[in-house]
Amino acid sequence: MSGHVVALSGGVGGAKLVHGLGLALPDASLTAIVNTGDDFRHLGLHVSPDIDSVLYALAGLSDPERGWGRREETWTFMTALKGLRGETWFNLGDGDLAMHVERSWRLSQGETLAQATARACAALGIHPRVLPMSDQPVRTRLRTDEGWLDFQDYFVGHQCRPRVHEIAYEGAEVAQALPAALEALARPDLRAVVICPSNPFLSIEPMLAMPALRAALANAPAPVIAVTPIIGGKALKGPAAKLMAELGLEVGNETVARRYAGLAQVFVADSSDPLPGVVPGVRMAQAQTIMHTDDDRRMLAEAVLALADAAR
Amino acid sequence: MSGHVVALSGGVGGAKLVHGLGLALPDASLTAIVNTGDDFRHLGLHVSPDIDSVLYALAGLSDPERGWGRREETWTFMTALKGLRGETWFNLGDGDLAMHVERSWRLSQGETLAQATARACAALGIHPRVLPMSDQPVRTRLRTDEGWLDFQDYFVGHQCRPRVHEIAYEGAEVAQALPAALEALARPDLRAVVICPSNPFLSIEPMLAMPALRAALANAPAPVIAVTPIIGGKALKGPAAKLMAELGLEVGNETVARRYAGLAQVFVADSSDPLPGVVPGVRMAQAQTIMHTDDDRRMLAEAVLALADAAR
Repeated sequence: MSGHVVALSGGVGGAKLVHGLGLALPDASLTAIVNTGDDFRHLGLHVSPDIDSVLYALAGLSDPERGWGRREETWTFMTALKGLRGETWFNLGDGDLAMHVERSWRLSQGETLAQATARACAALGIHPRVLPMSDQPVRTRLRTDEGWLDFQDYFVGHQCRPRVHEIAYEGAEVAQALPAALEALARPDLRAVVICPSNPFLSIEPMLAMPALRAALANAPAPVIAVTPIIGGKALKGPAAKLMAELGLEVGNETVARRYAGLAQVFVADSSDPLPGVVPGVRMAQAQTIMHTDDDRRMLAEAVLALADAAR
Repeated sequence: MSGHVVALSGGVGGAKLVHGLGLALPDASLTAIVNTGDDFRHLGLHVSPDIDSVLYALAGLSDPERGWGRREETWTFMTALKGLRGETWFNLGDGDLAMHVERSWRLSQGETLAQATARACAALGIHPRVLPMSDQPVRTRLRTDEGWLDFQDYFVGHQCRPRVHEIAYEGAEVAQALPAALEALARPDLRAVVICPSNPFLSIEPMLAMPALRAALANAPAPVIAVTPIIGGKALKGPAAKLMAELGLEVGNETVARRYAGLAQVFVADSSDPLPGVVPGVRMAQAQTIMHTDDDRRMLAEAVLALADAAR
């Protein structure tokens, strides 16, 4: 089946499936809308962690061992910054810095985040279209036992240790969802929308918190299919399961599926888990969701697309 | 003899003698006033090449082979920037970037260049006081066969190839010389002022173009001694000799000495060269000015200080 596919993605886990979809689909058939709720300014540089994870995955530049950042990375900058007694709580690889410096410079010259991202895609030879969810800031913040924390302060500074009581997406009500993202979700040739295996609270819901993006997803003229980030009651990476427990939610697939109810028609659990219990309006399915290799990524993408096609 | 010493310095060659003076003098007895005419913004970062050369020399971080930048440098940033099709005409080492990013960030937070420099000195354990010649921009520009060029465009971008007809120090008339620099030059315990072996046109004269700094030097209550950057009719590094020829000046020690006449009472040529011809008001001297090792640096510093002391 032909048609355009839109993927909603956060960082590393989501980026792998975006890459898989890129491998499975013809060029120019994929648009990725990427969370920018984790974006922040650090040492004056604009850092967009999820966009970078998606670009690195699509360009074959991701580090396969570390799970984030670039392969063949060096850390001379951090060593020198430590020598200058600079702020070293957030690790910036030397190669990764090129993205932050170049992006920050382009933004300071008046480019939008979408334009700077498109420029990076062109330079890196990336064919899928990669879009930030918005050109305006939406910032994920967490109310914890230690008060309200900015996302990176919670995620990196505090390594997700503080107990979380509430999550807010500052700016989501006023930020304009990227027009190109809304257009992609309304394409008459839309084949499927894939909600990638990303943290629902920290990667997908910042997008859903923008009313226009949520509405576009609800009205998308194609099946919406969500892939779980939870396997065996745990997240492969990151604090999704911990957050569920702290927010008083049952840790499991049903909880994730319920958060996407009304938006997603199909929910994909990992094949090693039992088929999730009933969530009204959501068809449950299973697939091999762990992606070690490029083949794993492509195969999951193909399985997800087949499930979406079957749900038309 | 005790007392305070002030050094005027540009980049690499001057920085070596600043380091030598630091080795020869007790802590807190040396103030270096450093050229900022080469400063520029690159990719949104504030780069101060001469300040960095002085700091790296004083902190023992200079690369001994390359002649500029940091030792044990890596270049992953540049490789990644090239992959992003960024501007790669100016080389930024990964460790060097820490200085540029940290400084730029501090400046954006409202610190002055002098404050950011003092902060870096403290972090690096540097005892001599290192001062930018001004907190305000003075920019060296060159009128060449290819039109007016910014300094780094001429120096790095064009590798000093275009013929130079005129040199301007934009902003020098309005920029305020750093008050601490003027105070250092007026100290009652001033022992000597050393004009380091830097390019007169590109490193020293941007300072002299600021009326208050020139006046403070002319009125300094201690001998002013200049060390030549010319050996055997050539500059050890950089375009000093080429510029002299292009500006219609005789290439040699006398030309340099004449540019400092009225300011310097002593001029030091290299001991491998003949004693320079008469320049009114300037006592000619000789010393071993090539500095391969830290000992060379310290010995030249001691020779220069002895010559200054003898000129009182």
